[in-house]
Amino acid sequence: MQYKQLDKTSVIDYLKNVKEVMNFFSSEDIEADEIGDGNLNYVYIVKSIENPLKALIIKQAVPYLRCVGEEFPLDRKRMTFEIRALKKFYNIFPSFVPKIYHSNEDMSLVVMEYLSNHIIMRRGLINKIKYLNFSEHISTYMASTLFYTSSLSLNSSDKRKLVDKFNSNYELCKLTEDLVFSFPFMEHETNDNENTKDNPLSAKLFSDAEFKERVLCLKYKFMTQSDALLHGDLHTGSIMINKDETYVIDPEFAFVGPFGFDVGALLANLVNNYIHHCIVTKDEEFKEWLLQTIKETLDKFNQKFLKFWSECNDSALLVEGYLNDESLKNYKNRFIKNILKDSVGFAGCKMARRIFGVAGVEEIRGIKDATLRDEAETLSLKIAREFIMKYDKINSSDEIVEIIKNAW
Amino acid sequence: MQYKQLDKTSVIDYLKNVKEVMNFFSSEDIEADEIGDGNLNYVYIVKSIENPLKALIIKQAVPYLRCVGEEFPLDRKRMTFEIRALKKFYNIFPSFVPKIYHSNEDMSLVVMEYLSNHIIMRRGLINKIKYLNFSEHISTYMASTLFYTSSLSLNSSDKRKLVDKFNSNYELCKLTEDLVFSFPFMEHETNDNENTKDNPLSAKLFSDAEFKERVLCLKYKFMTQSDALLHGDLHTGSIMINKDETYVIDPEFAFVGPFGFDVGALLANLVNNYIHHCIVTKDEEFKEWLLQTIKETLDKFNQKFLKFWSECNDSALLVEGYLNDESLKNYKNRFIKNILKDSVGFAGCKMARRIFGVAGVEEIRGIKDATLRDEAETLSLKIAREFIMKYDKINSSDEIVEIIKNAW
Repeated sequence: MQYKQLDKTSVIDYLKNVKEVMNFFSSEDIEADEIGDGNLNYVYIVKSIENPLKALIIKQAVPYLRCVGEEFPLDRKRMTFEIRALKKFYNIFPSFVPKIYHSNEDMSLVVMEYLSNHIIMRRGLINKIKYLNFSEHISTYMASTLFYTSSLSLNSSDKRKLVDKFNSNYELCKLTEDLVFSFPFMEHETNDNENTKDNPLSAKLFSDAEFKERVLCLKYKFMTQSDALLHGDLHTGSIMINKDETYVIDPEFAFVGPFGFDVGALLANLVNNYIHHCIVTKDEEFKEWLLQTIKETLDKFNQKFLKFWSECNDSALLVEGYLNDESLKNYKNRFIKNILKDSVGFAGCKMARRIFGVAGVEEIRGIKDATLRDEAETLSLKIAREFIMKYDKINSSDEIVEIIKNAW
Repeated sequence: MQYKQLDKTSVIDYLKNVKEVMNFFSSEDIEADEIGDGNLNYVYIVKSIENPLKALIIKQAVPYLRCVGEEFPLDRKRMTFEIRALKKFYNIFPSFVPKIYHSNEDMSLVVMEYLSNHIIMRRGLINKIKYLNFSEHISTYMASTLFYTSSLSLNSSDKRKLVDKFNSNYELCKLTEDLVFSFPFMEHETNDNENTKDNPLSAKLFSDAEFKERVLCLKYKFMTQSDALLHGDLHTGSIMINKDETYVIDPEFAFVGPFGFDVGALLANLVNNYIHHCIVTKDEEFKEWLLQTIKETLDKFNQKFLKFWSECNDSALLVEGYLNDESLKNYKNRFIKNILKDSVGFAGCKMARRIFGVAGVEEIRGIKDATLRDEAETLSLKIAREFIMKYDKINSSDEIVEIIKNAW
């Protein structure tokens, strides 16, 4: 099928030929509205006219960066990787991924479950909503998606076949390399240059050679360490949530990369939110809940990852009978600690890039008061630097929480 | 073109339709002889009847392991990776790779330069031939092929495209995972089980949990660290040599893996030869030359790799201007030291697997006298263990040479 960019009329014509969608609505009386936040893709909600609660989401990629326009080309093949990742993650653990009703790689289009009772987690956290099931849910999501797409679970050729399916996500990998690991730490046209100008904070960051050398090590790891299939952009804006349920969406950055990158992205975004509450709301109780959530998420991730591993005796890595039980336990404990260390390193990069890089984060760049925003930026860079300088020495979630608490 | 297994008659019919080959011979009066050592593939020499010094080599893969027979299937696609790697390495540095006259991935066939004045390096070293240019040649080969296929040289998408071209070399990667990193260190049917039976040395090795845990870390690195395009089997049997020239052949194991694996393979095989001379010939002068060659090879590799890097300011890893000169120098020096460390670790695995694993090495398994062979095996495992236990602490080639010397 040849690619064609749809609009809210032609999307209906398209869907009327999709059996799974027609089965869902059991009527051709449907209508579409565009609801995309408009950064990358077009997003439509399609509803039954008779029963508007019955709805599906249609997401289509266009061959350019939508928020800039056609003059900024961006391969619509990114949707291919999003489709593949959504299906893969859904197959591993369906509770945390929206159900896919239809997908079409040629059309760069996916039709999925409408999450009507959920909001973007970042919004919820800014509004001090506590999600008491979150650490339980997200730790299961991360431990299962990472473990079951790694060489600790797959056999050798299935792992390489998985790499094949995602390896040509060139453009979005390159975006991360540039926008997370390089440009935000040097003079660059893509930066938020109104803020970098005459700012002692950016001057200090850009000349912090020790910090930047360590970021470079983490960038190299991001580029060359093929541990597992990552979401690739696991921040709180990629999570739809309510008190009972947690869904991870938008895995268009998916590729086979280092374990710690997803865990680190989540950690960074929880810390960004904590910083917001330190500076803006000063809500001690909510801050405490955030720290506890960070600790619980990391500890549960650790336990669940090891549990999945304990159920798998034969994989690309391990031949049954190769190591005795005690050595195997030692090996696994060191392995999971290394994931924790890397997660802290990647979290540091992910936090620091939000200060002067092109993509800010609402909790910090969104602070209107310049003095408060400056305080938040200072605190964020302080924690990020501690993370980057100490990540390979970290041995427990407690040490991470200590770094965060002691910075303020 | 459909695959067809050739014989010494049909290979001539095939070649008569290949323009480049006919141009080379400038006559249709050619004849073929089979000269394969018979392990994996069929190898023919094709000569001009009029002038037998005018010759080419034709190598064709069959869809099974030739030395075992059709009951041991082995994907002939391995020749696809050999062809791609030969071309890639030839383009990087033509002096050390045989010239390709013709290749055909469908036919799993390659036609290349006949190296008439060269012998397999392992044979030469066993016969105490000193190759005075070897360290200069092989260090250039390794530094250039590894550097120019890495993220230190390529841009982000070209690096991922290179991974694509070799990532489906599933079967041979799996062979290495099993036969280098796993089976030789445990009871396994593929091992040289006549030797493991009632042998205190195998009993000790198979129960050496500390050693095996570290081998497992190196296996994981082999499976998941995508540094550069490797030859993948760089032992002295893959090198054709004379006093003046050095050619690296047979890169069918090529894939994008860790830098240290090729360097480590070569190191292991030079040490294996050193052990042979410790035990069998006791030729002190040749042993001294071997140690010097090891040191020179590693030091020159280091220097040349850094030289190539100094000529390349923009790559997937480095954005020009990101680091100041001093920090960049620090970063590069640490980087190259890490390659040395990993090389020592991989060399340890490569040496140890030759003792009880399926594939022995002539210098050790080929020793007829049982007592001497046992001495050689003991010495090899002693050095291999030192390499494995100390690799991540190694900082210079001198320390490596010390380990080798002090073991005997």
